[in-house]
Amino acid sequence: MTAVPASSLPAAEPLTVMGAGLVGSLLSLYLAQRGHPVQVYERRADPRRAGFQEGRSINLALSDRGWRALEGVGVADDIRQVGIPMTGRVMHDAQGNLTHQPYGQAGQAIYSVNRGHLNRRLLDLADAHPNVQLSFGQQCLHIDLKKQHLHLLDAATQQEHTEPYSRLFGTDGAFSAVRGALQKTDRYDYSQDYLEYGYKELTIAAGPDGAWRMEKNALHIWPRGQYLMIALPNLDGSFNCTLFFPYEGTESFAALQTPADVSAFFGRVFPDAVPLMPALTQEFFEHPTGSLVTIRCFPWKYNDDVLLLGDASHAIVPFYGQGMNAGFEDCSVLNELLDQHGDANWATIFNEFQTQRKPNADAMADLALYNFAEMRDRVADPRFLLQKKIEARIASQYPGRWTPLYSQVTFSHTPYADAWAAGQRQDAIMARLMAYIQTEDDFDQPAVQELVEQEMAER
Amino acid sequence: MTAVPASSLPAAEPLTVMGAGLVGSLLSLYLAQRGHPVQVYERRADPRRAGFQEGRSINLALSDRGWRALEGVGVADDIRQVGIPMTGRVMHDAQGNLTHQPYGQAGQAIYSVNRGHLNRRLLDLADAHPNVQLSFGQQCLHIDLKKQHLHLLDAATQQEHTEPYSRLFGTDGAFSAVRGALQKTDRYDYSQDYLEYGYKELTIAAGPDGAWRMEKNALHIWPRGQYLMIALPNLDGSFNCTLFFPYEGTESFAALQTPADVSAFFGRVFPDAVPLMPALTQEFFEHPTGSLVTIRCFPWKYNDDVLLLGDASHAIVPFYGQGMNAGFEDCSVLNELLDQHGDANWATIFNEFQTQRKPNADAMADLALYNFAEMRDRVADPRFLLQKKIEARIASQYPGRWTPLYSQVTFSHTPYADAWAAGQRQDAIMARLMAYIQTEDDFDQPAVQELVEQEMAER
Repeated sequence: MTAVPASSLPAAEPLTVMGAGLVGSLLSLYLAQRGHPVQVYERRADPRRAGFQEGRSINLALSDRGWRALEGVGVADDIRQVGIPMTGRVMHDAQGNLTHQPYGQAGQAIYSVNRGHLNRRLLDLADAHPNVQLSFGQQCLHIDLKKQHLHLLDAATQQEHTEPYSRLFGTDGAFSAVRGALQKTDRYDYSQDYLEYGYKELTIAAGPDGAWRMEKNALHIWPRGQYLMIALPNLDGSFNCTLFFPYEGTESFAALQTPADVSAFFGRVFPDAVPLMPALTQEFFEHPTGSLVTIRCFPWKYNDDVLLLGDASHAIVPFYGQGMNAGFEDCSVLNELLDQHGDANWATIFNEFQTQRKPNADAMADLALYNFAEMRDRVADPRFLLQKKIEARIASQYPGRWTPLYSQVTFSHTPYADAWAAGQRQDAIMARLMAYIQTEDDFDQPAVQELVEQEMAER
Repeated sequence: MTAVPASSLPAAEPLTVMGAGLVGSLLSLYLAQRGHPVQVYERRADPRRAGFQEGRSINLALSDRGWRALEGVGVADDIRQVGIPMTGRVMHDAQGNLTHQPYGQAGQAIYSVNRGHLNRRLLDLADAHPNVQLSFGQQCLHIDLKKQHLHLLDAATQQEHTEPYSRLFGTDGAFSAVRGALQKTDRYDYSQDYLEYGYKELTIAAGPDGAWRMEKNALHIWPRGQYLMIALPNLDGSFNCTLFFPYEGTESFAALQTPADVSAFFGRVFPDAVPLMPALTQEFFEHPTGSLVTIRCFPWKYNDDVLLLGDASHAIVPFYGQGMNAGFEDCSVLNELLDQHGDANWATIFNEFQTQRKPNADAMADLALYNFAEMRDRVADPRFLLQKKIEARIASQYPGRWTPLYSQVTFSHTPYADAWAAGQRQDAIMARLMAYIQTEDDFDQPAVQELVEQEMAER
């Protein structure tokens, strides 16, 4: 008779997850599937109940890192049915002329997904798992890191109660209460940086019979130099628009005070969109103006008791569409580390997790800020679009040796920091090359081909 | 009969100052002398009472910005009597050999001052002013910015009480409760960054009859590449030493666990200091290890109700000796703005204050980090010391046209940001020049003189 060694048995340590948003609900599924009993606390009410109000942006762009994390718990196919593939950008100029730019190669796309639907679906799956216990309306007032106690306020009873934890995962978002407790420990590095831009969500209405009134399989951009509007398709034929706009200045939220101001401004700068936005002025004044923050902190763990994931440790601006994808990748990476080290070596796992993920989260934060300038400004520049075409030509001429930065971030699992470093090297090469290129055909000139050959050889 | 216009009358608006440390006590004097009733709250007990324990570093280096601020309320002469001028650095190498480097020109010095004495003296002066009311043992638990209420905990009675304020000045240091309230407002930029170094205060004992056992009028430095010790003279013949040392690594706080470890390490790396430190091992384990943080934030004000000054808005590392001087300069600058705009235009004053001071505080934070590398490493390099000599030669050859960075920061009132920018330009020139200089005499070579002439002409 041979005993099964204890270390190979599935661990069943009870775990606590604070926050049942996208990352928290996915993480609880991962942990539950590994055999752990998981207690999840969420400040807000259950979003699956009638009358729930979303507090955050409606649409998200799911890309490869997010899909892989969803596949890891077997829910990707389910989600894919309600995602709309977007194969490229469509730029709208001030005259309503359109320019197309593919995101990647044929067959590659990012997916417009409704945040509420995705969150509710993940919660359904977590709720159905016998290891997961979900508790909503539980506001975290305070965490005693030494005693390992949570102090919670129950919204229904307005009673405070104290709950112990042995292992706590903080997935409670950019304004994380769990991180708040870590911030009070000695030598805690922390920063929150706001852009001087806010955002406003608006709607392009569906056409008759739920038809899409602009190209469905694209992310639409109205780049205007110092600001921009984007639109992502919804299943019902509408598009969810987001205006990213300065708080102050001549063209700013502060400058648009009346419905007439808003109509005049939109009519002038987004003339092709306005006829599709019947609720524009009403939405503009009824919807809140959201702020745009980058949060960096370190460490992400407290002893082997507490670990932060997702926006709680690395909230970023939305311009690369990677906030959720990065948070989901946190779940995949943690799962891999658990596979590698076993479900008991938390000190090693938490340490490796933050050591591996912190530089990638920092790179992604930089990339997101970098892409803001690209989306509001550079995509309107014909030279920039020509450069993207040339890059695509190089990528297909040197398969496997040149992957554009956007593709590395969006369609690969290359660590963000490596992608960012490679992207900067490629940018330097493109700057040298573009000096010799006026049209796409110039790429085939022998002199240019020689230069490309030479640059590729030096890499 | 002519009425005196109200705006020319001395304003007597009651003001509230949170924090009676160095900056808070000086600020309360400034405001009281302008005719305002000033209520000061301080978390700690009155430092003038017996048995008070200092929580922070014992010695400070007062330089020109600090002196000017003290002169503004007429207390500079009083303080000067208990300051010890330090005219330069004395570097101690690992064999105990000494190298001298003057800080500025003849007659220029920074002053070693005891923090406790300075604080107590400023509190005496504030207390004696009929407009100032000091309240100690008042911990700020919470600030209601909308209602303009302070929630305080009285240490003596353990009772919480609520106090209204109309204008609140936050001078409550790096871990400011006032800033804590501002941080909770929307779009608040904030960062706290810790060095991976801590500090430990130690003592070089006085000689017989209170004699100084090292050169009295100098700041002593033991530069050791990755760490350093400094010593500042006290009036009683002792020196206050501070070891700046990594938390982790082969040479670190973590590596020194026993008195034997400490004795062996100090004996090896600070051989000339150890015989002068009879309490070394005891102090090493009894004194706390302090951490080194840089804090940046913005805005520094809330409406025209609240303003942050000193470490509350710009805590820096101590390596340029400018933390207190920068905080004191905040008081002079605010006073100038009050002179300029009158004691009622708070919105204008708070706005100008933060607009003017923020870039200077950021530059000073950078300078302090820059000087850490200089003090622990570069001052031990003969080439660096030669460069300092050449710079002094240029400064005397081109009077008024070249002020070394250290002098601009320490012996001038040039805004920190301008000093830092000029210093970086000068550094670039020195790098070019030093390529031609092996000894101080080389400076007189015609070719070098020509180069200097040329560089100066291009400025």
